[in-house]
Amino acid sequence: MSNDEPACPTLGDVSAAEFRARLHEVADWIADYRETIATRRISPQERPGAIAAALPASAPAHPEPLAAILRDLDRVIVPGLVHWGHPAFFGYFGSTTTAPGILGEMIAAALNVSAMTWRTSPAATELESVVLEWLRQMLHLSDRHQGIVYDTASVATMHALAAAREALGLDIRRSGLAGRADLPRIKVYASSEAHSSVDKAVITLGIGEENVTRVPADDEYRIVPAALEAEILKDMADGHRPCAVVATVGTTSTTSVDPVEEIAAICRKHGVWLHVDAAYGGAMALLPEERWAMAGVDAADSVAVNPHKWLFVPLDFSVLYTRRPGMLRAVFALTPEYLRGDASANAENYMDYGIQLGRRFRALKAWMVFRTFGEEGLRSRIREHIRLARLLASWIEADPAFELAAPVPMAVVCFGVKRENVPAREIDRLNEAIVQSVNETGEAYLTQTGLRGRTVIRLAIGNVLTTEAHVAACWELVRATAARLG
Amino acid sequence: MSNDEPACPTLGDVSAAEFRARLHEVADWIADYRETIATRRISPQERPGAIAAALPASAPAHPEPLAAILRDLDRVIVPGLVHWGHPAFFGYFGSTTTAPGILGEMIAAALNVSAMTWRTSPAATELESVVLEWLRQMLHLSDRHQGIVYDTASVATMHALAAAREALGLDIRRSGLAGRADLPRIKVYASSEAHSSVDKAVITLGIGEENVTRVPADDEYRIVPAALEAEILKDMADGHRPCAVVATVGTTSTTSVDPVEEIAAICRKHGVWLHVDAAYGGAMALLPEERWAMAGVDAADSVAVNPHKWLFVPLDFSVLYTRRPGMLRAVFALTPEYLRGDASANAENYMDYGIQLGRRFRALKAWMVFRTFGEEGLRSRIREHIRLARLLASWIEADPAFELAAPVPMAVVCFGVKRENVPAREIDRLNEAIVQSVNETGEAYLTQTGLRGRTVIRLAIGNVLTTEAHVAACWELVRATAARLG
Repeated sequence: MSNDEPACPTLGDVSAAEFRARLHEVADWIADYRETIATRRISPQERPGAIAAALPASAPAHPEPLAAILRDLDRVIVPGLVHWGHPAFFGYFGSTTTAPGILGEMIAAALNVSAMTWRTSPAATELESVVLEWLRQMLHLSDRHQGIVYDTASVATMHALAAAREALGLDIRRSGLAGRADLPRIKVYASSEAHSSVDKAVITLGIGEENVTRVPADDEYRIVPAALEAEILKDMADGHRPCAVVATVGTTSTTSVDPVEEIAAICRKHGVWLHVDAAYGGAMALLPEERWAMAGVDAADSVAVNPHKWLFVPLDFSVLYTRRPGMLRAVFALTPEYLRGDASANAENYMDYGIQLGRRFRALKAWMVFRTFGEEGLRSRIREHIRLARLLASWIEADPAFELAAPVPMAVVCFGVKRENVPAREIDRLNEAIVQSVNETGEAYLTQTGLRGRTVIRLAIGNVLTTEAHVAACWELVRATAARLG
Repeated sequence: MSNDEPACPTLGDVSAAEFRARLHEVADWIADYRETIATRRISPQERPGAIAAALPASAPAHPEPLAAILRDLDRVIVPGLVHWGHPAFFGYFGSTTTAPGILGEMIAAALNVSAMTWRTSPAATELESVVLEWLRQMLHLSDRHQGIVYDTASVATMHALAAAREALGLDIRRSGLAGRADLPRIKVYASSEAHSSVDKAVITLGIGEENVTRVPADDEYRIVPAALEAEILKDMADGHRPCAVVATVGTTSTTSVDPVEEIAAICRKHGVWLHVDAAYGGAMALLPEERWAMAGVDAADSVAVNPHKWLFVPLDFSVLYTRRPGMLRAVFALTPEYLRGDASANAENYMDYGIQLGRRFRALKAWMVFRTFGEEGLRSRIREHIRLARLLASWIEADPAFELAAPVPMAVVCFGVKRENVPAREIDRLNEAIVQSVNETGEAYLTQTGLRGRTVIRLAIGNVLTTEAHVAACWELVRATAARLG
């Protein structure tokens, strides 16, 4: 990357020999990073603005060598990151950094093809189809479920609801929703525990945030089917049009599982699209003993599963499976003139199934992860994460100073301190302070979540590097912190 | 990646030593690929389904070694790709494969952090802000333009129009568009040459495809401002509500440039949001002598620029700059409970500006490309691509058997055969046959496009590996093919 190309210093790319040397330099950087990740502070101590202030305010006028860039990477950037790949990172939904995932992204970047249509890179489209078929089988979805890869589950949910909106048969693609006296209000239903991406999708689609009905959840944070049906009936009586129900398999806060079979029956009865958000929980279907979590999903019109959540494929890789792919095409298929001639009989053109035109070759990394681990390897890792979560839950239950805040059906544990005769608000503040204090040590990383107005500690397991020792050390840190703080 | 971890064969990741060895193996694979890319067939000869048929129908049950995966990569996948990085690939908008871009993606994959909020990885958010500020300066946009990175320009345009829709002040986020007797039709305007992503965005947003007015373009494929204003006035008279105009700097077919200054004045006069699609053409602003192309864009409410089109950053990396970031937040900001505590004073949380929650660390690759090339290096490469395009245009003009089909303001050349007394349809078919025949040689890659109902050949230059020799060889191939075919 240095300017050692005398003939033509600012044209072309670096020389082949130079590039090869730099690739090996970066390969070692990655190996070193991964080898030492467990010894790093997980989260930084910088104040907002400190990192930006350490970098130049303008782009350099002239080329800089890779060595200088890697120096700044090590000096400024890396210490300012939260290391999601650290084995004691228990935030959000774990990390999916894996060796084959990294190698897959490397190769995809070198290829840098775009899977807009079959013709723009046949192997990218066909490998996407193959990998999605492999995953469909592993998830035990119906063979009528056809998949497409998007970047995130928020985008997958938006596409599912766009298809549901079109399926109303109200000529919405062509005529839109505004200024049409004939149109009813369009209603979408989800539990109080469903992900905020439902709101973002509904806002985007012009359905309106207030037209999302948040159906109450039961004691275990699962949608109450009777309450759902009551809301649908009430809306129908009021002249509104029920459009879609979003059920969740693995909610973000507690990984609770909505009763999908009962919901599917209600949807069928009233002609409402059923979308299942199994972005996290879909992975449960790989384990025979945990397949209950996906029961009924087979009947869903659409289901989102994120291999970048619990199937070891690096960010981003979210799959939407749908029994009604024609409805997605009915919303999104266009063939701009300069892509004419790209349509090939029997070839899938994934640009016809969504808003994005440019599409990275994401299938490659999933293919490499699935092959490197094998289905049994995926299974045993998922199984181990569940075992670790339930082990932690048992430690919490055995400790009189703590209590579980929700059941632990998957690999996320919600818990908090238990104190007699202490006001709820004070306990909430203590849980919050524990999370903050643990994170400040840099030795583990937790998040907090709200459950029925209370603040609890949330610990998610999902990293291939995480062992029982990491979970035990974090638990000891939480106990010690709680004892110290109050 | 082999199963040489005796203690625990299916837990954890590969060993550090094993991973380091595999990283170097893949580094060499990438170096070999890049070193030999110019010698490869650009596009494959497979029929749809052939690649999928060569791969197993199900995921393997047990781990497979990297060597087996790389063998299949070389045997099945790579021969089935269109090699966008080949120096004679002249399709779409060129390729942005560059050495620093590949290295940046490698490191980002190893880090695998998510830039949802500032707190989820401060350096990822702050580097995004820094890199977007560097780019803003290079583009000579106003310092009131604030940027955000999305995946593609289609998504950027959708967000821009979502903000424009909210800016109507009709309470659309909350109440939506359907079933409201008070709402007018909402109208969006673009030229006949604007990208199809405008239609996809308008469909998605519930505005309705028929509410996009395609304003006629002039002889040089630029929007006619008087025609635009007439459409706006007509819609207002009919009780409709003009929402946004999408002007284009560098249309997809011919890279024509709409008269943005005049359009901005019309938008200002009628209170309509101006979005500029400079996904491709924005790069022109880096050259003092080509800055005319972005004249007036400074006044736009929003502008999309794709560094993954002509600024050497690999797919995907699209930037939306807007003077009204508050309007994007007004549409998309939500704070789900489990992200509470992530809000930090003075810190940007990019999830509040769009539909995506999970966000890859895309800023890293842009930072590495901009530093490795330097602003002067970016300039000289863009300048060289323009020089090559105009050189080709001069060859076409000097050849009595060919003619230019449109002006060549940037680095895309539209042209076709010239024949006296031959019906237009026959010439169209000949142009189409030339594209197909050239592509079948595997030595160059062209696309075709439609201009006023005619089919022409389209050749786009933008790859750092492309030299004058590649353009000359392609031109000779086109000439020989035309002579042979008709």
